[in-house]
Amino acid sequence: MLEQIAAKSVRTIIGLMSGTSLDGVDAAVVRISGNGCDNTIEPCGFITIPYEAAFREQLKGLCGPGGADAAGICSMNFRLGRMFAEAAAAVAAQSGILLQEVDIISSHGQTIWHQPSLKGCDIPYAEASTLQIGDLSVIAQLTGVVTIGDYRPSDMAAGGQGAPLTPYADHQLFGHPDRGRIVQNIGGIGNCTVLPRSAALEQVTAFDTGPGNMIIDQAVVTLSGGTKEYDHNGEWADTGCVDHDMLGRLLSHPYFKQAPVKTTGREMFGAAYTRSWIAEGEQQGLSPADLVATFTAFTACSIVRSYEDFIFPVHDIKDIIISGGGSKNPVLMRRLAELLPWQTVTASDALGISGDAKEAIAFAMLADNFVRRKPSNLPAVTGADRPVVMGKLALP
Amino acid sequence: MLEQIAAKSVRTIIGLMSGTSLDGVDAAVVRISGNGCDNTIEPCGFITIPYEAAFREQLKGLCGPGGADAAGICSMNFRLGRMFAEAAAAVAAQSGILLQEVDIISSHGQTIWHQPSLKGCDIPYAEASTLQIGDLSVIAQLTGVVTIGDYRPSDMAAGGQGAPLTPYADHQLFGHPDRGRIVQNIGGIGNCTVLPRSAALEQVTAFDTGPGNMIIDQAVVTLSGGTKEYDHNGEWADTGCVDHDMLGRLLSHPYFKQAPVKTTGREMFGAAYTRSWIAEGEQQGLSPADLVATFTAFTACSIVRSYEDFIFPVHDIKDIIISGGGSKNPVLMRRLAELLPWQTVTASDALGISGDAKEAIAFAMLADNFVRRKPSNLPAVTGADRPVVMGKLALP
Ligand SMILES: Nc1ncnc2c1ncn2[C@@H]1O[C@H](COP(=O)(O)OP(=O)(O)O)[C@@H](O)[C@H]1O
Ligand SMILES: Nc1ncnc2c1ncn2[C@@H]1O[C@H](COP(=O)(O)OP(=O)(O)O)[C@@H](O)[C@H]1O
Ligand SMILES: [Mg+2]
Ligand SMILES: [Mg+2]
Repeated sequence: MLEQIAAKSVRTIIGLMSGTSLDGVDAAVVRISGNGCDNTIEPCGFITIPYEAAFREQLKGLCGPGGADAAGICSMNFRLGRMFAEAAAAVAAQSGILLQEVDIISSHGQTIWHQPSLKGCDIPYAEASTLQIGDLSVIAQLTGVVTIGDYRPSDMAAGGQGAPLTPYADHQLFGHPDRGRIVQNIGGIGNCTVLPRSAALEQVTAFDTGPGNMIIDQAVVTLSGGTKEYDHNGEWADTGCVDHDMLGRLLSHPYFKQAPVKTTGREMFGAAYTRSWIAEGEQQGLSPADLVATFTAFTACSIVRSYEDFIFPVHDIKDIIISGGGSKNPVLMRRLAELLPWQTVTASDALGISGDAKEAIAFAMLADNFVRRKPSNLPAVTGADRPVVMGKLALP
Repeated sequence: MLEQIAAKSVRTIIGLMSGTSLDGVDAAVVRISGNGCDNTIEPCGFITIPYEAAFREQLKGLCGPGGADAAGICSMNFRLGRMFAEAAAAVAAQSGILLQEVDIISSHGQTIWHQPSLKGCDIPYAEASTLQIGDLSVIAQLTGVVTIGDYRPSDMAAGGQGAPLTPYADHQLFGHPDRGRIVQNIGGIGNCTVLPRSAALEQVTAFDTGPGNMIIDQAVVTLSGGTKEYDHNGEWADTGCVDHDMLGRLLSHPYFKQAPVKTTGREMFGAAYTRSWIAEGEQQGLSPADLVATFTAFTACSIVRSYEDFIFPVHDIKDIIISGGGSKNPVLMRRLAELLPWQTVTASDALGISGDAKEAIAFAMLADNFVRRKPSNLPAVTGADRPVVMGKLALP
């Protein structure tokens, strides 16, 4: 069956992604043609199905320490599987195709824990590990489509950090013969892929830059008493003043000095972290707007600092291509542009790939590799011992 | 790749099972020949790798309400994957074969929650669902062998209870042209498969009879102050007297009157349930031996009652074939024989299939079906809407 899909000159694949922001399910339809090398990727449709607020809070609780037990995770694994199946059906309908015409659904799943190292972890029988939920069999049964997903454990079982996984796709989508580029995703977490000009896949590097929208979001939820979920168009940050003293202290977090390969997540920059900085800022007399402005500057500065420390010294970079929800925050985009005067700073949309859809498209590409047994992790990026065919497959 | 395995005249498969008893990992090597129908199953090796006591307690905690969070389950999913991979390597070595000669590893995983219905469930966003851990990608990466497993969600996503799944194998292994048979597994939970004489697969029925060794085990752990894990050879039960009044009350649990299709688990007959009956018995002045004797009789009677209520009225049954750890408890076996004077009561070992290995062998058979896209759930048994190809696949 997989051979049959692999042999098709054009594969129609739905990519599904639910990121650390817990904002909703991203679903993209792509047509991939080619025989594995030099594929052509044609985005054909995209939607985001937002989670309702109560559901998001439930999910967020589940991701925190002590937040859920086996029963809660068991139910949520099936519930998310069902919601992912519905998102696949919705994006197919919107794109004017039938689910029967879809060759593969590719689902990243929802990360509820990601623990690439055991440092500071004191639970018994701890393992470097990662956990994505949204059951693949549920998706396959409800849609009738071959479903592939749950990519991160394969890389981690091969000694990698299980992240980042989008560099394979970034290289294919944005690699340029003459211009060195950084593809920066700003989701809950920020991560960047470094594409030196005319780089071969093996020369690609990538790492998590640190928090993306996570701290801004958490601050907005807290400071608005739960009435707002994120700083829409950066409106709040725009009315505040950055506190440079606090900014400096935020940037002294040891994560930023750590050399890549490195990954992070809600475990490091979660609700507790943000709350403690809010408390400190309030004691100092900072207004909510000042705090949001400072956290927004923090995201921008932490991204650019990591370029200055680890990328610019070795690579000539001309373009910074931004994807993820953060690209829709004009204050964040402006700060990045200010801090990067020698590079172009553009949303990926300008290059034909919707910044919202990019990760979902990237995971569609990993499923296409699975059916031809082609590895898609980059050992230099994840720290894995070897390239591996990532993912699991469920049949309808 | 799957086509290649399916096309082989003989497939070497390792089946891995870790049951609700949490006693250890069962690993069986089987050679399956045939093209899907009328296969021949040749068991070639078997080991159990027992969990150490502290690990078992950690795992048991994880399965209870409130017992673990996302971090604990994330780690345990990888840890079990590694232990399953080690068990596969160990059974291969003991059987004198190389892992490279193994076509498939089939892993049931460890059930940490199984909730086939939402009755009495009050968590938000609850779903009928099931959760097995022991990551398939970890097994595949550490062994280098194609790994298939995690079967139950497929059936449940098709509307089934996700259990029991061994009837497919029971039919193939024990079906008889002239003798009606019941295959009774006594693991943590008891479950039976009804094989009318010369039954077609569609005529097979099955259900969980109720507790198997679960209550006996829990009582022995509690009453021995943790120094014993189970009633070795029924020695404790043998010195006690059954309290018939308590036995009657135990048997009045509504589960036993419920008509099949039905499944149960630690959620219904777990530690809290056993503790409350121990407390009641102690108040009545029952000795520990009396309690263990009564719980052992309870297991036997609940099994036979369910035959009398649901099987014997419709089928002529000649043989009862017992598998699972309970077949090694002579008191339990004697009680069953006494209560079933019109049938033979034999351990499955006498028919050439080790009672310890049977479930691991059964799951090996399900993996063989996966590669040929053959369904192995029985809708009449699980309540599913349709037959489905169960499981997920991870590549090495
Ligand atoms: N118009 C907008 N203005 C400001 N921020 C936005 C806007 N749209 C989206 N975002 C930010 O993007 C986040 C979602 O980004 P996304 O790339 O989906 O992250 P993830 O991949 O972690 O789910 C939101 O939580 C929000 O912080
Ligand atoms: N020699 C024995 N005497 C009495 N009971 C035994 C013996 N060996 C195994 N058992 C029982 O069998 C159980 C394990 O059975 P098993 O079939 O592995 O269950 P599961 O599939 O739930 O793990 C033990 O917990 C114990 O109760
Ligand atoms: Mg998102
Ligand atoms: Mg067992």
